Amino acid sequence: MRLNEEKMAQSQKYKELNTIIHPESVALIGASAKEGKVGRMFMDRFLDTGYQTLYPVNPGADEILGIKAYPSVKAIPGPVDMAVILTPTAAVLSMVKECVEKGVKGVVINSAGFGEGGEEGKALEREMVRIAREGGTRLIGPNCIGIYCPAARLPFPWPSGTESGKVGVVSQSGSLADHLAMIASKNGIRFSKAISCGNECDLNAVDFLEYLGEDPDTELIIAYLEGIRDGRAFSRLAKAVSKKKPIILWKTGISDAGARAAASHTGALAGSAAVWDGVIKGSGIVRVKSFEDILDTLYLFYHQPPPPGNRVAIITGPGGPAVGTTDACLEMGLEVPRLIGETREKLRAVLPSAGASADNPVDLTLASVVNPALYGDVVRILGQDGQIDMILIIGQGGEEFQNAVSKANQEIDRPIVATILMPMDVVLREVEVLLNRGIPVYSDARRAVKALARLSEYSAYRRALKV
Amino acid sequence: MRLNEEKMAQSQKYKELNTIIHPESVALIGASAKEGKVGRMFMDRFLDTGYQTLYPVNPGADEILGIKAYPSVKAIPGPVDMAVILTPTAAVLSMVKECVEKGVKGVVINSAGFGEGGEEGKALEREMVRIAREGGTRLIGPNCIGIYCPAARLPFPWPSGTESGKVGVVSQSGSLADHLAMIASKNGIRFSKAISCGNECDLNAVDFLEYLGEDPDTELIIAYLEGIRDGRAFSRLAKAVSKKKPIILWKTGISDAGARAAASHTGALAGSAAVWDGVIKGSGIVRVKSFEDILDTLYLFYHQPPPPGNRVAIITGPGGPAVGTTDACLEMGLEVPRLIGETREKLRAVLPSAGASADNPVDLTLASVVNPALYGDVVRILGQDGQIDMILIIGQGGEEFQNAVSKANQEIDRPIVATILMPMDVVLREVEVLLNRGIPVYSDARRAVKALARLSEYSAYRRALKV
Repeated sequence: MRLNEEKMAQSQKYKELNTIIHPESVALIGASAKEGKVGRMFMDRFLDTGYQTLYPVNPGADEILGIKAYPSVKAIPGPVDMAVILTPTAAVLSMVKECVEKGVKGVVINSAGFGEGGEEGKALEREMVRIAREGGTRLIGPNCIGIYCPAARLPFPWPSGTESGKVGVVSQSGSLADHLAMIASKNGIRFSKAISCGNECDLNAVDFLEYLGEDPDTELIIAYLEGIRDGRAFSRLAKAVSKKKPIILWKTGISDAGARAAASHTGALAGSAAVWDGVIKGSGIVRVKSFEDILDTLYLFYHQPPPPGNRVAIITGPGGPAVGTTDACLEMGLEVPRLIGETREKLRAVLPSAGASADNPVDLTLASVVNPALYGDVVRILGQDGQIDMILIIGQGGEEFQNAVSKANQEIDRPIVATILMPMDVVLREVEVLLNRGIPVYSDARRAVKALARLSEYSAYRRALKV
Repeated sequence: MRLNEEKMAQSQKYKELNTIIHPESVALIGASAKEGKVGRMFMDRFLDTGYQTLYPVNPGADEILGIKAYPSVKAIPGPVDMAVILTPTAAVLSMVKECVEKGVKGVVINSAGFGEGGEEGKALEREMVRIAREGGTRLIGPNCIGIYCPAARLPFPWPSGTESGKVGVVSQSGSLADHLAMIASKNGIRFSKAISCGNECDLNAVDFLEYLGEDPDTELIIAYLEGIRDGRAFSRLAKAVSKKKPIILWKTGISDAGARAAASHTGALAGSAAVWDGVIKGSGIVRVKSFEDILDTLYLFYHQPPPPGNRVAIITGPGGPAVGTTDACLEMGLEVPRLIGETREKLRAVLPSAGASADNPVDLTLASVVNPALYGDVVRILGQDGQIDMILIIGQGGEEFQNAVSKANQEIDRPIVATILMPMDVVLREVEVLLNRGIPVYSDARRAVKALARLSEYSAYRRALKV
């Protein structure tokens, strides 16, 4: 019921974009069977997802990888909802014309060599938009990788998950969108849709952010932006969307040299650091600063509930790391309070006598290596303490550790993260098991703390709005 | 020759500690054959390293894992240079007494439950020191894991490399020292010695820092400190040592809650953030903020030469990441200058025409996936440009990529790092190959930039001193 009402309330613009993002037929212009070609990569992916009505377009082939090919878009017998153009730059304008004449609703222009190269390319972009507008066709790109939408079986050129989920992505970098989908999919994250908008000659990141904000399938948004045209409009939109769902944003191009790099990457006007600080302030946006930072933050927001406050309890086996972890919490606006007497008494009953600490950070000592079940006991005790909002575990991994922690995680209602002080191959095995059980695992406690701080800030933002 | 002269110049204190760190005989008090016991872990490690004159001490055993055991230290027939005490807390004082009576030169007290627990434990520590001083015995710990010295076949309780190398470690956290040795060893780093000094009832971190500063086998120092007694003396020492070799320092306990955690961990007095900023300022210390940060920094300092300046060239295959990487450089005090005309012309000759950028960042486009040798060509061209001091590569890995980059690395004299935008299992395979060829690899460009910024700062510090 609620879903239907929401759908009815969706804007005309939402519906227009939604048709392009869920096309019933796709023309792949520049499809190829030749290994190493992007036209082949897309063919492979469309075959992987089992997309139904695919029309490879290539004047030199009757069929490509077993699918009937057409010499041009116009030669396709049925209607075409969406087209992807992969041809060399010089051929793109005429391909766009053909698509408009064919009545294609949305055209993704993958080809590069336009506005990011300078004025000549920008003029070409304007000409494409003029032609598209005449026929009511919308353009995505150029210099982008288009749309990944598992529910519609639309793929990115590299393998990503085929199951649908709650994360929506809008990115001005194709490689970033693609790698995010690929890497996070491998770690169990499921996407509603990911959109790479490249040079944005027509549809832009703000259009897609608005779309994802309205989209009932999207509960969490990742945005990668190099530049936007209207900061004030973006700020208003971000505020409205953040009330409903978190926007994890990586804004780049904030230094002069970075802005220059952005200009040559997608032709974007980046805007200074100070301007962006203003745009983002008070918007509820969750701001991150690198690709790994996106992933670190995403895993926590995806799996764990909002904390009721900013107080962290740290549980450690090895003693040393807890000290620096405590520092990191304080540095990032979290508290590591002393525990109340009742909790300390309960802890004393389960902790070893020598070297252990029954206060915060809770130090299990080397006993935790011999008896990893201790971690579960302590999580449960802390989970009953109303003065503790989040739990950070420093451990050494292993099956008993995994079982103890994931069982306890199910029994408490506050966010838990773990960090594993072991070589990366061991950490990866822990990530594989624990992340699939909903517990984010970090190779470094500072990264875990940063993620917790962001979840805590966003939760506080929403609490203040009483939403 | 030079080595001999240096050795002659070494202080009396250096010689005293050096004997303890290279003992000709070791008593392991609390040795055990029982799995899971720390006494068993040490036995296993001593057997791994093939240490020669080991005396297991345990009143309940005639032999342990095939080695003759003794009921007490005093029952050992020959002299004992060093003893490691692993017994329960209550037995430690009498064991120390026996060691002093036996004439043991240095005693590592592994056992916990002393000063970190409060005043009673501190009094016990003072009593142990009083007894030790009477017999000229030096104490290390309590609440520490002692000394790892591959050249002397002295092990930590977890497996680390058995080859000797140039990295010296001093740590107030045993688990940190142990994990650092274990993890970095797996990644090809070799250690001269790593010393865990725990509660420092007698010998402390500053003593060992001084030792490592004088030690001709140590070319790079890692220090983990929670608190020190004399900030001014530390500052003077750090300055003197930094002139000769870098000190990578993680100082924790700088927040109030962190200081409380430090007090319960090793009983250290941590000192405020402001005090520490003052102690470190101008000392040449390379300051890091987490365990991963130590490793990220270490790999670069270990393998790559100092850069002549702070100017970075970025080479990327995927377009997007270069923009944020440029921002990170500027944020951390590095420059990403435009390239001179001559270099741009050389680049244009090798780069693809569409979408590529022959300026900084250099964008190879998707062509880099088809032809990874491009990375090598571009590194070589940038290596000839006197306006570029460091090179950061963003790539996707693979054998051709590895070969191209590592070959080019050998041909230029400026530092190179790589970041791989792929799932962690892929990144790990790249790390394994490239790090062994001397090229640090990071899963995130921001971490690579941070490491470069630190190497650049330290190099500038040394240039300014004209050493």
